[in-house]
This record gives sequence, structure tokens and C-alpha cells, in this order.
Amino acid sequence: MLAVHIENGAVTTRDIPIPHRAEGFALLRLLVAGICNTDLELQRGYYGFSGTPGHEFVAEVAAADTPTLVGKRVVGEINLACTECGWCRKGLGRHCPSRRVLGIVNQPGAFEEFFVLPERNLHVLREGLSAERAVFTEPLAAACEILDQAAIPPGETIAVLGDGKLGLLVALVLNAHGYPVHQFGRHPEKLRIAEAAGVATEPNPENLPTAAYEWVVDATGNPEGLRAAIAMTRPRGTLIMKSTVHGAVGIDTAPVIVNELTLVGSRCGRFEAALPLLNHELIPVERMIADRFELRDAAKAFARASERGVLKVLLQAG
Amino acid sequence: MLAVHIENGAVTTRDIPIPHRAEGFALLRLLVAGICNTDLELQRGYYGFSGTPGHEFVAEVAAADTPTLVGKRVVGEINLACTECGWCRKGLGRHCPSRRVLGIVNQPGAFEEFFVLPERNLHVLREGLSAERAVFTEPLAAACEILDQAAIPPGETIAVLGDGKLGLLVALVLNAHGYPVHQFGRHPEKLRIAEAAGVATEPNPENLPTAAYEWVVDATGNPEGLRAAIAMTRPRGTLIMKSTVHGAVGIDTAPVIVNELTLVGSRCGRFEAALPLLNHELIPVERMIADRFELRDAAKAFARASERGVLKVLLQAG
Repeated sequence: MLAVHIENGAVTTRDIPIPHRAEGFALLRLLVAGICNTDLELQRGYYGFSGTPGHEFVAEVAAADTPTLVGKRVVGEINLACTECGWCRKGLGRHCPSRRVLGIVNQPGAFEEFFVLPERNLHVLREGLSAERAVFTEPLAAACEILDQAAIPPGETIAVLGDGKLGLLVALVLNAHGYPVHQFGRHPEKLRIAEAAGVATEPNPENLPTAAYEWVVDATGNPEGLRAAIAMTRPRGTLIMKSTVHGAVGIDTAPVIVNELTLVGSRCGRFEAALPLLNHELIPVERMIADRFELRDAAKAFARASERGVLKVLLQAG
Repeated sequence: MLAVHIENGAVTTRDIPIPHRAEGFALLRLLVAGICNTDLELQRGYYGFSGTPGHEFVAEVAAADTPTLVGKRVVGEINLACTECGWCRKGLGRHCPSRRVLGIVNQPGAFEEFFVLPERNLHVLREGLSAERAVFTEPLAAACEILDQAAIPPGETIAVLGDGKLGLLVALVLNAHGYPVHQFGRHPEKLRIAEAAGVATEPNPENLPTAAYEWVVDATGNPEGLRAAIAMTRPRGTLIMKSTVHGAVGIDTAPVIVNELTLVGSRCGRFEAALPLLNHELIPVERMIADRFELRDAAKAFARASERGVLKVLLQAG
């Protein structure tokens, strides 16, 4: 079978055997996958990764212990947790210290024709939901995580910095949940996707307001964005850090302390929160699809996804 | 009257007129004042400060609109707020955007024989409470602020990093409130003050535990301390940032986001929370007094307070 392989910055494809399905696992046949910024970072050598990446996917169950699963279209939670530690028992397997992570940590990813995941990680998709919407479940869950972590009172205006893939999903999710959202970004054509759903957008981030918002989400992925987000947060306000910046970020801690800000790191989230949103008309994720490639053209797909300003690039099984 | 003056790093004394007392203000005669790290930072030129510093004090009311105040010993809140904005109406004048701050921002401080503060800022001390305990009210309130900001469940163990003045007060306050406290520092002689009150202390911060505490307070005042505090916090845990570090601090945001930490900036607090603690036997603040100087020897006092490892240096009116 065909598998994408990343090593030392190069994206290649290989012909490897179909993986062994262990007890409790399902063998999954890829339908469509999405390239995430994390995949591009793995390619660039962060985390010393080599192997098959990919964690945003829709697949068909080819084999499983549970017979009724076979043939079903599924999405899957990406953390393979131990199920027994304190974190797992609290329903927070996403923080299990011995977790593996699909396509990121010690578990071959979804950018290959067949791959395996524990059955308990899978969510069967309803008929009629397109694979091209469902492939956004994982990043949508990451956007939903904000509402799991912060009790934002109804009616509060939320500022979102950044109009990349994650910034758009965050703005759309908060907007669909009824919050007034002000999104700041540098790309009018991307902001229009959020605008069409009712988000107030501001394509001129040179004139960011100061100490203006009680709730701010940084989804810029760059140090200047994080610093700007700190400056935009009102005293005693909350800034949700939704995107990692690699390496040390120079932050002036004085405004954080003087204004008694709360900074909340936020990562991936529950699929249960994301799946219902895929039925929501205010979540036009398919408008974020920039391009589609066959799995065998993964190198081209990664190159396209790395271009400045490109939103979601999909990989399709042949 | 004698007033301490700071300019371009030099600490001098001057003979200036007794200040005018405006309506609503009290004229205060200094009894004893404490030198805070902020005062040392003002001396070093942060905030471009020049003038009379000092915001930790016990004074006697020399004149006031309210006749019953005259002759009373008082401590005083350091923020002079507008009383009319949204912050002030919420009881958070400490964040009033047009506030002046005693000895820090646009308001001559307490290191002089007479100074003024609004009557509403004053708290009359009970008889029998020594001035050398009461002079710790303001930094004690800053330590209490943690409990105003974070709802720490009873019984939770709290790690405190740093054994300087603020670190000790934080450890003592949390300990007096019944929390198990683990304090990490580099100075066994300072840690003994907390230890005597029942705090578990760890004088070897080279071997800090990783991802070990749900609640961590950074009171180190240095970038390494903040980075260590981040590493000590468990996934989904809370790190309270209690001390400023000047200039940009290089922080790796990845562990904050991957572990979904909450970082809470924390500054000064309510005197109402601090004053009752001065009656508490587990708050042995007087053991933190390192030295005493007359106001006219302020330059020597600042030099002493700047020595490595020195705790609280007091200034006494002549």
C-alpha cells in the first residue's frame, strides 16, 4: 500500500505492507485527509519527527473487532491514551502522560492507504455528511476546546487574532455559539469566509485597539500576534493561546502582571463538541478548502499547503 | 521636612515644604516604611521614575477632614483611583485606568516626613498591633490577592517558587489559610522562616519536580524561575505569576499550550484580606526584618536593601 513518509524535510511516498490490526483496533481505509500546520512543522523537523504524518481524516472501517463498524465512515480522536491513569479516568486522555498521538507521537498517521486506531477513538459519521466537511472534525474540536476551558458568559464579545485555518475555525465556532466575534487578520479574502457567517472582521491589524476586550483568542502562530493579543486584553481579562510558536517567545510579563491577565493554553478538544457543528449552516468549512491532491502527490500537496496564505489542502486516497 | 529623592539611580534626601492637603485627603506623618523591590527597580530607572518613592508605610494622621481620624495610626491603599469609572464601581480601583499610585505613578510616596493620601484609602490600626508588623500590610495584601483571583480548592498542595520577601509572604499566607505549601528556594536561612510556620521547604531547586503540581506560584522575579514554574505545573494546572521580570522574557509557549496551562498575572491586593492576618501567629513577618535606618540615611538603606539575600529593610522617621 501507499504511505507518505517524512524525513529530513523531504516528503516522499513508499510502498509498505498494510499494518497489522491488534485487538481493540480498527483497520481504516483512508478516504480523505487534511494537511494541518502541525504536519508542516513535522516536515520542518520540529519534534525530530520521521515517519508517516496525518491526523485529520475521514476513513472507512475495513476491519474491526465490532462487526457493525465494518464499512462505516468514521473520524477518529488522535490521542491513543492508556485508559487507566488518573487523566484517562477523568476523561482527559488527551493529557495522558503515556499517550501516543496519531501521526505525531509514536503512531503512524493517516496519510497512507490503510492505518489503525483503537475502536474507542472512532466516531461513525451520519449518512449525508460529506467527507469534505467531516475532515474538519479534528481542527473544529480544537476550536471548540476554548469553550470547554473558559466559561465565557453569553453575550461577551470575543476578539480573535489571526485569519489562518485555526483562526477562522475559532471565529466560526464562537460565532455559531452566539458570541459576538471581532476577528483581526491580514487577508481580506480569508476574513470574508468568517464575515459571510456573521463575524465582524477587521482586515487592518496595524491599528489594534488597546486593553479593549475581556476575551481574546490568539490564533496567529507568531510572537508578534501573541504580544498584540496581550496588549488587546483588558485588565483582569482572559487571553486564550490557541497556537504554538516554536522556540522561545520574548514576552514582556509586566502587562500580564500589572493588568492581572489570565492566559490559557489551549490544544485539541473533544470530537463530541465538534460533530454537531458540522450540521450547522454557520460553519462553512468547505469554503476553507484551497486544493486537493492524490495521496501519491503528497510532496506537491505539502508544497502547496506551505504557500503563504493557503488554507486547507486535502489528500485523497486514489 | 525631609524627603527621599530618587533620580538617575541616586538616592538623596531633600528639605522640601510639607505637602498641601486637598479636600478628601489626610496629611500623614510617617512612622515606619518598608523598602520594596519595586522601590529598588524605580531607583534603577524602570518606568523613568524620578521623585519620592515609598508605598509600604505606617503613619499617624496629622490632619484630615474627618476629625476622628486625627491622631490615629493608619496604613493605606496605594492606588488613588477616580472612584467613578467602571473599574472603580466594581471595587477594582486597583485597575482604574486613570489611577495614580503612591510612590510609583504621579503621586509622591511615603519616604518623607509628611505625605498625603485620600481618607478613603486609609485603614486605622487596632491598638496593640506594632508598626513593624503593620508595615507589611501592603505586601501581605499582594500575597492575599492570589486567593482573590484563583479558587484553589481546600487541601490542594501549592508549590511556591522563590524565597525572597514576596515568596515568603505568599508561602506564609497560603499556609495560614490551611493549604499544604511546598516552597522552593536557594536560601536555607530564609526558608527557615516559612518552615517555622509549618511550610514544607526545599532548599535545592536544582532538582525541581516536573509536571508535579496543580497549583504553582512563581515569586522568583527571574526568567529562569518562570520557566521552571511552567515545567513544574501539571497539565491543566494553574501557574500564578506573582513577580515581574523586566524586559522580554523568553518563554517556550509549547508546554503552556500542549499542557493547557492557565497562567494568572497577579499584582496588589485588598487590605481587608491582609489586616486580619496580622493578628495570626502563623504570619511572623517581623522575622523578615533585616535592618532599620533613619529616613535621612535612605541612601544607606537602599544600598543595604540591594544586597543579595537581604529581606525587608525599614525606614524610620527621625
